[in-house]
Amino acid sequence: MNTEFMSKAFEIAQKSGSDIPVGAVIVKNNKILAQFHNEKEKRNDATAHAEILAIKEASKNLEEWRLCGCDMYVTLEPCPMCAWAILQSRIDNLYFGAYDNVYGAFSVLPELWTIANSKINVKGGIMESECKKLLDEYFEKMR
Amino acid sequence: MNTEFMSKAFEIAQKSGSDIPVGAVIVKNNKILAQFHNEKEKRNDATAHAEILAIKEASKNLEEWRLCGCDMYVTLEPCPMCAWAILQSRIDNLYFGAYDNVYGAFSVLPELWTIANSKINVKGGIMESECKKLLDEYFEKMR
Repeated sequence: MNTEFMSKAFEIAQKSGSDIPVGAVIVKNNKILAQFHNEKEKRNDATAHAEILAIKEASKNLEEWRLCGCDMYVTLEPCPMCAWAILQSRIDNLYFGAYDNVYGAFSVLPELWTIANSKINVKGGIMESECKKLLDEYFEKMR
Repeated sequence: MNTEFMSKAFEIAQKSGSDIPVGAVIVKNNKILAQFHNEKEKRNDATAHAEILAIKEASKNLEEWRLCGCDMYVTLEPCPMCAWAILQSRIDNLYFGAYDNVYGAFSVLPELWTIANSKINVKGGIMESECKKLLDEYFEKMR
């Protein structure tokens, strides 16, 4: 785990504009392969979460859907869609910032991980207070 | 529910080439908005399931990520990634063909639907034997 990459994901999340501020970075051999923020509103696409966009871009760059040897850093705990995409793409390590106690696949859907029977390593709560504050400020402004 | 659209999804699934044969169609007001088969291998993208591709295309066509008033017909029970994408895109009705007792989000992850707190209507087992046969033949050939 390298906090420098979570800082990068945080920096990207800050550029989300009218979208919920979430940033994701995919790293292989200490090099960034893909970096995206959430673009659901911008692209008018319910699947355009930061994690999905980053997986697509990393696969494109590697010309390979198997992202073995890759790590993902994302500022918010992934939803079930993104969690399953991460598992299917065979990412080695997942590091996330803020927890999501409503839709977070780790917090509220532990069964998802049992089914997947994956060896992925997951660690949450990295730069948690900064990531949470960014989201809280967004939702406060939206009210 | 209109079996004509499931027949269309089945027809598309048959064109999946080296990918696992799954076809999806999104319909609004009796008109097809999007139709795709699974293209994971073809596109080298773990997220390129038929359902995700169809959601992206339908949203593009409607210039709207909210697919209210739309129905999806898909030949295989969606995985957790696709199931959450379907829920997030606010599709009204989901009709699927074959059940997936290993990764099917309805069969093995009922908790996913509780969390989503959605009003979606789901019906499986439509043209079940044809859809299952197509998948069985594919996996037999792959062995």
